Amino acid sequence: MTSLFYNLDSDTALAAQLCRSLEAEAGTLEVRHFPDGESYLRIHDPCKDRLCVIFCNLFQPDKKTLRLIFLADTLRELGAKQVLLVTPYLAYMRQDKRFHEGECVSSRPYARLISQAVDGMITIDPHLHRYHSLSEIYSIPTIVVKAAPLIANWISHNIENPVLIGPDSESEQWVSEVAELASAPFQILEKQRFGDYQVSVSSPELAPYHAHSPVLVDDIISSGRTMLETIAHLDQAGLSRTTAIGVHGIFAGSAYTQLSEKANVITTDCIPHISNKIETSEALAKAVRQLQPV
Amino acid sequence: MTSLFYNLDSDTALAAQLCRSLEAEAGTLEVRHFPDGESYLRIHDPCKDRLCVIFCNLFQPDKKTLRLIFLADTLRELGAKQVLLVTPYLAYMRQDKRFHEGECVSSRPYARLISQAVDGMITIDPHLHRYHSLSEIYSIPTIVVKAAPLIANWISHNIENPVLIGPDSESEQWVSEVAELASAPFQILEKQRFGDYQVSVSSPELAPYHAHSPVLVDDIISSGRTMLETIAHLDQAGLSRTTAIGVHGIFAGSAYTQLSEKANVITTDCIPHISNKIETSEALAKAVRQLQPV
Repeated sequence: MTSLFYNLDSDTALAAQLCRSLEAEAGTLEVRHFPDGESYLRIHDPCKDRLCVIFCNLFQPDKKTLRLIFLADTLRELGAKQVLLVTPYLAYMRQDKRFHEGECVSSRPYARLISQAVDGMITIDPHLHRYHSLSEIYSIPTIVVKAAPLIANWISHNIENPVLIGPDSESEQWVSEVAELASAPFQILEKQRFGDYQVSVSSPELAPYHAHSPVLVDDIISSGRTMLETIAHLDQAGLSRTTAIGVHGIFAGSAYTQLSEKANVITTDCIPHISNKIETSEALAKAVRQLQPV
Repeated sequence: MTSLFYNLDSDTALAAQLCRSLEAEAGTLEVRHFPDGESYLRIHDPCKDRLCVIFCNLFQPDKKTLRLIFLADTLRELGAKQVLLVTPYLAYMRQDKRFHEGECVSSRPYARLISQAVDGMITIDPHLHRYHSLSEIYSIPTIVVKAAPLIANWISHNIENPVLIGPDSESEQWVSEVAELASAPFQILEKQRFGDYQVSVSSPELAPYHAHSPVLVDDIISSGRTMLETIAHLDQAGLSRTTAIGVHGIFAGSAYTQLSEKANVITTDCIPHISNKIETSEALAKAVRQLQPV
């Protein structure tokens, strides 16, 4: 059955690729605002008994989430057979415990809202730290697409004699995976974090890798502090120019400008950015098909 | 029991008045954004077994609603005895039926979200048109504060020899109520609406009111088109300068500039604006106390 595909408030390039990879029918959505800031939403396709896929990429989530809930609710009310959400970046995974008294552990109510709204969700490498799987907070079927094989494939085709570098112990598991898939060695550095923007990185054992091309890999590039510190250490250790790869390039403030002075910055197209080089649409489409009824 | 009072993303002046009227304790809320646009929220008060009141004024609702849900969820999780929402303007009441195929009837999912999040809600004159009461879509206890007595009181103290004018038949019920409370006569005009911004008003029988001060009353002033048309008719009919009163002054675009050239524009403080003259905090506080356990 051909799926109906809706792009809600998200990047048109990845949406078009994904719709094509899914061999889906691009649905027509009318979205506007009333003068008091309310959203108006209208679906211009018959969607009764259809498989519906909403592409809504949840970075900057606060202004998108209500519309997502409205769209999913309307599709269900109009008789859609299934409503799946594709969000390459999954928001609200960071606050996964109460670090200080009185904090909102936002990952939990957010997961509840999304789980009520849709029948299944596909995302790419969510920030799983204290949770081991999305099923701890999401009550719907989910598929996590791994960026590791896509990144490994890009490295294999673009970097000669790479050594993979993980900026901290949190990154070890999947940096080692990328390294293995790219048949390359890897090193994990140690990081200490002081608040959102202050980071220091300890010196690693880099002597054996002077002839290698250092490739730094992280899941989220946000302030870029972690990467900048790490690149400085790699430079001090006399390694050649670093390639810095991020799955989700958020690039707060001047992060990209600062990083690209020191390294070749590469990201997947999870979040639209000039640094996007690694395509995810085929992997996303495959995951969508796994959640659809045969 | 003293209530805990939180102002979430809303006008500080009305919040302070309401907190004072309630003799509540102003709670301390820490709200900031992560670089990807996620909200961070922390409550700095012990709220176990407390009565909590959230003042979150839901005009421009899309960016406020998620935070509201997070705050209410956190208060409940930390053991609050009751979580009440005070929103002088209630969003998403306009789309109260499917006017065209495929439209989102947003009033319903919005009511569901709010009903899940809090234990009760207080608002002022919501746009009840096809719904006769909030209980048709809200499953929690609600109190609707009527602006009519507040407006009537203001008219009695500020306008000599008033005649109340309702711009359309929708407004009759409560314009007649204001008129009765202010011991003044009233006239209802006829309106035709073509889309969001185009309105025409038919001529009324205004001859007997040449010695009166016309007072135009409506629940929401949005584009101001309805009021401008009506004022033009009142001017043509030779009446003196109009006083235009709105409960909710949204004033899209240049609505206020245009209106205030032709009339004295007065609003309640439901939505903060330079035209606010009619205070609502005492009436809101009274309604909050009605929903609180004794």
